[in-house]
Amino acid sequence: MTQIENAKKGIITEEVKQLSQIEELREEEISKLVAEGKIVIPCNKKRKKKIERLSGIGKGLRTKVNVNIGTSPECPRIDKEVEKVKVAVKYGADAIMDLSIGGDLDKMREEVINNSSLPLGTVPIYQAMIEEIKESGDARNLKINKILKVIERQAKDGVDFITIHAGVTKEALKRLETQKRILGVVSRGGSFLLSWIKYNQRENPIYQGFDEILAIAKEYDLVLSLGDGLRPGCVYDATDQAQIQELIILGELTKRTLEQGVSVMIEGPGHMPMNQIKANVILEKELCLSVPFYCLGPLVTDIAPGYDHITAAIGGAIAAFSGADFLCYVTPSEHLGLPGIEEVKEGIIALRIAAHAADLSKGIKKALDWDIAISKARKNLDWKSQISLAIDPIKANRDRKRLSRGDSLTCSMCGEFCAIKMAEGNIGIK
Amino acid sequence: MTQIENAKKGIITEEVKQLSQIEELREEEISKLVAEGKIVIPCNKKRKKKIERLSGIGKGLRTKVNVNIGTSPECPRIDKEVEKVKVAVKYGADAIMDLSIGGDLDKMREEVINNSSLPLGTVPIYQAMIEEIKESGDARNLKINKILKVIERQAKDGVDFITIHAGVTKEALKRLETQKRILGVVSRGGSFLLSWIKYNQRENPIYQGFDEILAIAKEYDLVLSLGDGLRPGCVYDATDQAQIQELIILGELTKRTLEQGVSVMIEGPGHMPMNQIKANVILEKELCLSVPFYCLGPLVTDIAPGYDHITAAIGGAIAAFSGADFLCYVTPSEHLGLPGIEEVKEGIIALRIAAHAADLSKGIKKALDWDIAISKARKNLDWKSQISLAIDPIKANRDRKRLSRGDSLTCSMCGEFCAIKMAEGNIGIK
Repeated sequence: MTQIENAKKGIITEEVKQLSQIEELREEEISKLVAEGKIVIPCNKKRKKKIERLSGIGKGLRTKVNVNIGTSPECPRIDKEVEKVKVAVKYGADAIMDLSIGGDLDKMREEVINNSSLPLGTVPIYQAMIEEIKESGDARNLKINKILKVIERQAKDGVDFITIHAGVTKEALKRLETQKRILGVVSRGGSFLLSWIKYNQRENPIYQGFDEILAIAKEYDLVLSLGDGLRPGCVYDATDQAQIQELIILGELTKRTLEQGVSVMIEGPGHMPMNQIKANVILEKELCLSVPFYCLGPLVTDIAPGYDHITAAIGGAIAAFSGADFLCYVTPSEHLGLPGIEEVKEGIIALRIAAHAADLSKGIKKALDWDIAISKARKNLDWKSQISLAIDPIKANRDRKRLSRGDSLTCSMCGEFCAIKMAEGNIGIK
Repeated sequence: MTQIENAKKGIITEEVKQLSQIEELREEEISKLVAEGKIVIPCNKKRKKKIERLSGIGKGLRTKVNVNIGTSPECPRIDKEVEKVKVAVKYGADAIMDLSIGGDLDKMREEVINNSSLPLGTVPIYQAMIEEIKESGDARNLKINKILKVIERQAKDGVDFITIHAGVTKEALKRLETQKRILGVVSRGGSFLLSWIKYNQRENPIYQGFDEILAIAKEYDLVLSLGDGLRPGCVYDATDQAQIQELIILGELTKRTLEQGVSVMIEGPGHMPMNQIKANVILEKELCLSVPFYCLGPLVTDIAPGYDHITAAIGGAIAAFSGADFLCYVTPSEHLGLPGIEEVKEGIIALRIAAHAADLSKGIKKALDWDIAISKARKNLDWKSQISLAIDPIKANRDRKRLSRGDSLTCSMCGEFCAIKMAEGNIGIK
């Protein structure tokens, strides 16, 4: 049985028990929300290697952060990507998606699973496309059977959630044609399916084969992440007819998914000005039966290549505060190239800050407790605790040592004019 | 005459003319808002060296970013701070505040003015405190006359706006005593005045001498920035009785300031959870006659020393979107030590991104034009334009070269699977 089926029968699964411990919420409450589809627990039930750090995603839970890694045609080295997996685990990611499109994809996935303690997601259409190119020379010859085979192979390997772009249908594309987008389609999956549909003059094979995909998802209890293939690729393109048309279709597919006892979440934009984010979150919740919302950023401006971890942190914080449940990290090098280790780390921390800031504002008690603890350490000029409580103790320690005398009670910004000391009447006293 | 006095008489000043060009707004519109106190133009009328990059701050204008620099007792070297001034100018700051508290303060200020093309702000109480310590050994012996002399000296040097903590009064401090703050008072000026008031058992000298300060401000047309000496120092302390009591007093002082034809803005918190920011901006506008709001961040969480440019970018973006007009940058090393050059740069870019993201959402046309231009370049895979339009072209170029093959039309993230190319039917074709 799937998590949803268990929950509906009132059975408290091992995973719900674990989540209850981690999130400090009652088992029954979590189980009820799982039954309703409002919480998902990515955990392939036929997984061989156990997930050590389980993540629940959804209502009332801490906002989670996903880290994308993966080879590309220019950078097919598996070892480099495995390093990123280790960094993701070390710096507190909640899930990893392997988006590899270069080199040996099966081997890569195996290595990710071996080196990760986190839930794993993939986008099976990538592998299906690439194998089709190898076989027939043109990805547009791809048939549903190959897609299903790839999904099943990845599920057998132990993947916990998969993105499928089932909403890129003829109907949604008809609306795209009437829009004056600058950047058209920027989702790799969405862009491929657009091309496939035009070339084959047939409906999206993932949409057509949705029931068969559901059957595999049910067998392994995969969480379906319904991808937003028509997401805006720049703030100018945000919240247009094509994007919302796709969301309506995803809402219908959400209903079909839940009816099969399969867990589902919805992926969301992308690039979006600040003022549209809340409306988009509300829309997703209303149109898609309140299942979890998985945001890619959103990036609140397009002018900052080299700093897109910051544009995404701003958008991600607002999205999470507005009700989004799962944030996909963005690295500084988004729009410039495949990230290196340092960029991966920066992206994780930035989005973890965003998620935490939102949790704080949403009243998640553990989030506020963390802020209170570090604030008390700051008041006491207790540097050891301040650093150990920092989101990145390594950097905090390194910066403090570099910028201030380590033996000083105060820091090099104020020194003897430390406000905390002055308030106690210690004016100008070292 | 001051900017306000000119505006009230319908005289379009040279500065209003310049702003009209920069902001693409009609001169009469700007002048009307200056007369109402809703726009301030920091520009000391007795300044010897002209401001090359004038900044208007307030309603309908692009959100501006201030950069704090300044020596400290541990780091008194002027040359290092002058380097930061140059970086601030280079990376697009709109104003600089010299917060020096170490070494030769007069010399430092002179060097900042010589090396900056931007409006300059200071916090004169710092210099007054330090000179008092030199003379009597205890800053708490400071009298209003010395404060006035320092303000006048700084005004003569060409300072354009000054922070004064006039709202840290006995009445506000009475409310502070009833609050269960973790971090008490974290403003250097506020903390000193708290200590001064307790020690002398008298009212805040800046509050008492407010009319005399106004007279100097009027003579030089200084903009008064009414400091929030009781601002929260951690998210737990935010929006308490002490903070709002001070804001009420600042509202009264705003009225007195405008009545004298002097421009004024209000400084705001500090540390604040996301959900309280909008309310604080509305409160400032309502209590303080809609004069510009100058936000210090706010930092939306306390857990990220080493990354406070990001916590401030999240808060600053929300504040600016909610109506704040002027954002003070925060560097990654806030709470760890005096920033180095690299931290200064990171802080500027992060807050400029925040300001721009807000402007985009507020409908500032020039902001959206910038995003449209870079998005079109991205669509055309026109890397040269993408990089030249980036907020930090140097970093964008360096990252692109490091992470991708420079000769490739696509980037190393997707390579031949570039969504932009695939949408055109180029599947798997280099």
